[in-house]
Amino acid sequence: MKKTSGEMNYSDYLHLDKILSAQHPVSHQAHARSAHDEMLFIIIHQVYELWFKQIIHELDSVIAMFQTDIVDEKHVGVAVARLLRMSEIQKVLIQQIDVIETMTPLDFLDFRGYLPGASGFQSMQFRKVENKLGLRPEQRLTYGGCPYHASYTNEAQQEVLQTEQEPSLFHCIERWLERTPFLGHTSFDFRSAYLNNYLAIIQREKESMLADGSMSAHERKLRTDMAEQSATYIRAALDPTSYEKLRAEGQHRFSHQAFLGALFINLYRDEPILYEPFRLLSALLNIEEYFSIWRHRHSLMVRRMIGSKIGTGGSSGFDYLKSTVEKHVIFTDLAHLSNFYMSRSSLPPLPQDVQEALGFRYVSRTTMDNSAS
Amino acid sequence: MKKTSGEMNYSDYLHLDKILSAQHPVSHQAHARSAHDEMLFIIIHQVYELWFKQIIHELDSVIAMFQTDIVDEKHVGVAVARLLRMSEIQKVLIQQIDVIETMTPLDFLDFRGYLPGASGFQSMQFRKVENKLGLRPEQRLTYGGCPYHASYTNEAQQEVLQTEQEPSLFHCIERWLERTPFLGHTSFDFRSAYLNNYLAIIQREKESMLADGSMSAHERKLRTDMAEQSATYIRAALDPTSYEKLRAEGQHRFSHQAFLGALFINLYRDEPILYEPFRLLSALLNIEEYFSIWRHRHSLMVRRMIGSKIGTGGSSGFDYLKSTVEKHVIFTDLAHLSNFYMSRSSLPPLPQDVQEALGFRYVSRTTMDNSAS
Amino acid sequence: MKKTSGEMNYSDYLHLDKILSAQHPVSHQAHARSAHDEMLFIIIHQVYELWFKQIIHELDSVIAMFQTDIVDEKHVGVAVARLLRMSEIQKVLIQQIDVIETMTPLDFLDFRGYLPGASGFQSMQFRKVENKLGLRPEQRLTYGGCPYHASYTNEAQQEVLQTEQEPSLFHCIERWLERTPFLGHTSFDFRSAYLNNYLAIIQREKESMLADGSMSAHERKLRTDMAEQSATYIRAALDPTSYEKLRAEGQHRFSHQAFLGALFINLYRDEPILYEPFRLLSALLNIEEYFSIWRHRHSLMVRRMIGSKIGTGGSSGFDYLKSTVEKHVIFTDLAHLSNFYMSRSSLPPLPQDVQEALGFRYVSRTTMDNSAS
Amino acid sequence: MKKTSGEMNYSDYLHLDKILSAQHPVSHQAHARSAHDEMLFIIIHQVYELWFKQIIHELDSVIAMFQTDIVDEKHVGVAVARLLRMSEIQKVLIQQIDVIETMTPLDFLDFRGYLPGASGFQSMQFRKVENKLGLRPEQRLTYGGCPYHASYTNEAQQEVLQTEQEPSLFHCIERWLERTPFLGHTSFDFRSAYLNNYLAIIQREKESMLADGSMSAHERKLRTDMAEQSATYIRAALDPTSYEKLRAEGQHRFSHQAFLGALFINLYRDEPILYEPFRLLSALLNIEEYFSIWRHRHSLMVRRMIGSKIGTGGSSGFDYLKSTVEKHVIFTDLAHLSNFYMSRSSLPPLPQDVQEALGFRYVSRTTMDNSAS
Repeated sequence: MKKTSGEMNYSDYLHLDKILSAQHPVSHQAHARSAHDEMLFIIIHQVYELWFKQIIHELDSVIAMFQTDIVDEKHVGVAVARLLRMSEIQKVLIQQIDVIETMTPLDFLDFRGYLPGASGFQSMQFRKVENKLGLRPEQRLTYGGCPYHASYTNEAQQEVLQTEQEPSLFHCIERWLERTPFLGHTSFDFRSAYLNNYLAIIQREKESMLADGSMSAHERKLRTDMAEQSATYIRAALDPTSYEKLRAEGQHRFSHQAFLGALFINLYRDEPILYEPFRLLSALLNIEEYFSIWRHRHSLMVRRMIGSKIGTGGSSGFDYLKSTVEKHVIFTDLAHLSNFYMSRSSLPPLPQDVQEALGFRYVSRTTMDNSAS
Repeated sequence: MKKTSGEMNYSDYLHLDKILSAQHPVSHQAHARSAHDEMLFIIIHQVYELWFKQIIHELDSVIAMFQTDIVDEKHVGVAVARLLRMSEIQKVLIQQIDVIETMTPLDFLDFRGYLPGASGFQSMQFRKVENKLGLRPEQRLTYGGCPYHASYTNEAQQEVLQTEQEPSLFHCIERWLERTPFLGHTSFDFRSAYLNNYLAIIQREKESMLADGSMSAHERKLRTDMAEQSATYIRAALDPTSYEKLRAEGQHRFSHQAFLGALFINLYRDEPILYEPFRLLSALLNIEEYFSIWRHRHSLMVRRMIGSKIGTGGSSGFDYLKSTVEKHVIFTDLAHLSNFYMSRSSLPPLPQDVQEALGFRYVSRTTMDNSAS
Repeated sequence: MKKTSGEMNYSDYLHLDKILSAQHPVSHQAHARSAHDEMLFIIIHQVYELWFKQIIHELDSVIAMFQTDIVDEKHVGVAVARLLRMSEIQKVLIQQIDVIETMTPLDFLDFRGYLPGASGFQSMQFRKVENKLGLRPEQRLTYGGCPYHASYTNEAQQEVLQTEQEPSLFHCIERWLERTPFLGHTSFDFRSAYLNNYLAIIQREKESMLADGSMSAHERKLRTDMAEQSATYIRAALDPTSYEKLRAEGQHRFSHQAFLGALFINLYRDEPILYEPFRLLSALLNIEEYFSIWRHRHSLMVRRMIGSKIGTGGSSGFDYLKSTVEKHVIFTDLAHLSNFYMSRSSLPPLPQDVQEALGFRYVSRTTMDNSAS
Repeated sequence: MKKTSGEMNYSDYLHLDKILSAQHPVSHQAHARSAHDEMLFIIIHQVYELWFKQIIHELDSVIAMFQTDIVDEKHVGVAVARLLRMSEIQKVLIQQIDVIETMTPLDFLDFRGYLPGASGFQSMQFRKVENKLGLRPEQRLTYGGCPYHASYTNEAQQEVLQTEQEPSLFHCIERWLERTPFLGHTSFDFRSAYLNNYLAIIQREKESMLADGSMSAHERKLRTDMAEQSATYIRAALDPTSYEKLRAEGQHRFSHQAFLGALFINLYRDEPILYEPFRLLSALLNIEEYFSIWRHRHSLMVRRMIGSKIGTGGSSGFDYLKSTVEKHVIFTDLAHLSNFYMSRSSLPPLPQDVQEALGFRYVSRTTMDNSAS
């Protein structure tokens, strides 16, 4: 790195004067000396907030790239890289719980009485992350009967509520999936072709059951019934009208068109042009899973630290956190897609023109490996 | 390491001939070549089984040490080390999920059809681990209506059911906790002293609320009610009769005496003689938490891989696994102990004779640091 | 999963009879009961060997795909996935060291005397992994003066030496890089364009130093000298003849053409057609780094466990392992490429026709996002 | 947690106004918009500095407890907990490298030119950590010929140099080890008893070699020579005078008395009173190893990011970092202790009175498990 005389140094660049002077244990006020472990409590929360800022930085940039009607193919690659970075950060967030768990409940009690209420629950940045990912206000669990922003100043409240209104990552991805090409390609009707093949698979299964002499009548009935249910399940999901009914019941969140787009990308992900879209969907599912894991571990840590007063009335921090594992979810539709997969050998073949459109152009394919000749 | 002429080599010692010749992909039978990823599927399951064998090896040794009426003090230290090792293995079990997740659902579908049913659900060793830890038969979730050992041979069934009958780790720890000394020491009645101090704390809290002019009448009512509930909660848990009632309702699993022992150890853990007992309880809680994390991650992985057919009737592997996170628990009493902690400064002081009994003997304390003088 | 009457079960499928009956502690022979920790020693080594088998399975499949003169574009994507899987396995190999470190040196000494010599050093599979990656026989450190296969049976020796002869991953990647298209494209001479731009950057730097009045004469001399050295360094690497000289000295391993290919891919990695090649090179560098980390941690663990007798003559296991961190390297050329990067804004622009050849075809780019319109 | 009307909230408590407003990308000054990845670069360095502050907090508290002539037995337990916490933080520091590696070299080049020189090398807190652990000024590698504090302001320089003068953790531990009791106990001379037993083991080995007819004369010579060397090695280390000579050569850092104390603790660590001392030494070794791992991974990351200009003259950041792995070490003596271990069955038995002094007192041992009877 180049260095010139009057140059800024490392400490100035990172504004370490501010960063390293922002730890003020409150237990100090009550005692001659502060509780040793309060420093850890402060620093780990500050570290979490710094990482949340970074996550927001990544989220904002991806949302900005996906808000346009036409998403540049290069942007998909960049988005994938940034979502994967988010997951690496999430792994660190999870790992950090091992650090906080070195503080035992008794050590926590040495200063807990002096702390402001509700702690982590009040993190404004984490609420923004949830909103920007696409958590819907109506999904939110309340804690102690108050809206999540009850403790904020008016200004902060406005700022957070604003993120409920802005287009979320979920929204952008849904719109982008709806525009997946080839779904309505003239020479290939993906929806019908897929449905036909899936129903044919089930039909073959049923026939093989009927032909299997080793099966008892009871078992045969059971299994053919299950096969029927599968057929009904698939048919309902593929039909726009019944899909909307299931969606209203909460079984799906994506629009039908976005659902079909995501299914197409997952089934034909071996096509080079779908590599990046497939990676994008996988990266989103990773983020969903890592938040689930973080919430789960977080809830275990809180239970270990402050318990969960069963029978005292009022829900505990542990109960709240445990419930968010189930309820504060966003991209579960992507996980449920596995219900609709079929093996590669059963996939409807793509017509020649679709296939060509999905591959790299001929010229690059040849030069890629023939330049030496 | 020394080497002599006729000596056994590394490969013989590890019986690698058996270990490395035990991978036989079944997809091979149906195709000219097997599905590439079936090898990973086989190997990772074999690795899991090897680790389960190691976990059982550790569990058995700890149970054996704790089955006697008098547990040698040195054995507690050894037990702690082995339980901590179990947790290090559990971390590897969790990390391995990142490996299996490199197999995408479509890759899995390339051979899934040839696999034996129910897979991991059938692991006999894992069932033994659950039984040896102390999972009660009545706690077990059924899957598809059958008992967990339905698919086993008669011999295997006997073997697993046997572990339901043998003393479990939970049982041994409960007995050991019941024998915690000092609980009924002549000069110190822990139960009464603890209860008095806890109720005094609550009383002081209530008084400070009544004196706080800035609080609204509504808020004061709310908070004094909560304080009352806490007092009731603590009183009930400390009283043997009402504790048994709560225990019958499932709010506790430990006997009352074991509960008191565990509470005592946690509250007075700064006493050197309680270091190892405290570490033991912490290690058990770690094991409980890591299995919870593993089950949670496992369920997410299964959902991602094979989905969760909502609406097809019959519970899915995902639903089953997700429920075991909540239901297949053993040492949660240790986590709930945090509900009963008070800060060090509020703890009933130990009488001089108890304190001496809890410290190292005088002679060692002096020589420990005075030998240079 | 479907289940039929006579079907194979989980245990049969995994051949658990073989896997779980292959642990035979030798300390048992000398004592009434075996040393408790020998079981861990056996099992963790068996687990390592299972993972090595899996790594070889992945390596073989990637090498097979890259041995042809024309590598199908889809194969690059598959290779990337398999190399990334290898890295996930490597992370587990590293994590497992935390498990073995729960065994203390004294526990190890309880059975160490009964063990076969040299232990892990004798792993035939690990030697194969090194050979298949591309470790050259002449790079290998010897241990105790013997070739690494000295302790093998004749048959095993043949088998391992065979892998020294077969095309390695390094070899295949080098050949593939040499065929990188566009390097010699008629309208774009990458080598000259790159060199010109790099030298122009250095020239501008020198001019700005000369114009900087705040710099002392001494500092200016120092810095202009460094800039000159950089120019010399870059010129030498870009020139085929001087590159070969440096290569003979061991500063490079790739052929000059492969070096240029790898540089081109890294610099223009934002072009969609280079996404997969870039990912492939990154994945190889990951593998290199994770083996480096594993060797380093392994050496620390061995030092902790059995020490390193300084002054006894003869190199220790620790010394050997520590040296392999530096010496048993394969793809370091990929790490050194960073010496040749320039910022995106300085990159020679690609001519229109090359750019088109590097993008997806026009038709897909439009339909990708316009189908909704 | 309790909440009162006028109470401080989460954001005020953590001073998030300062923490979250301290990110000022410099690439912004040169461009219309800043390089996206500079935010990550700033935030991850700020996070590292926060963790360094926490590590210093733990280190200072442990050093303070060990500076007295008599270390309270309870303090050893607290010190172990805090050193273990340091290792959990170190694991996070290592894990974070996965996050920074999501930034590719080209992304780094988008803003690298605007950065202050030398970056992480200038971290004052990390220098303090090294000094407080006990790195000696004369061990330090220089970088570019300047002392490590060359870039600091006068005030900062004083502050860092101060930590070179203060008692380090190494120094405190050495003093504490020197005071290990029982080393010169009247009824037990550890040094002689140990040496006798070790030499007897070697003697038996030699005799068994001479009796082994299957060994060739050459091999027998080789092995008996090695046994002789071991005897010489052990004798030299146990003799105070020759030990000091080896120490002057750099083979040991601990004083001879501290070396004997550490050896005694490790060999007799099964005695309850030595549990905490043994854990303390293990925790120190963990810290040493994790810093080694962090330095190693750090060096790989730097090489990947900015390369290592071989042949340009002047050492690179990579070369510097790689060398610190070997050179910036503190507690390696603890790792080398393994050279001196013997199996439990060969250990000189402790006389009855020493044994009693090392166990818990009789009264506690009985009541611990007999209260139920």
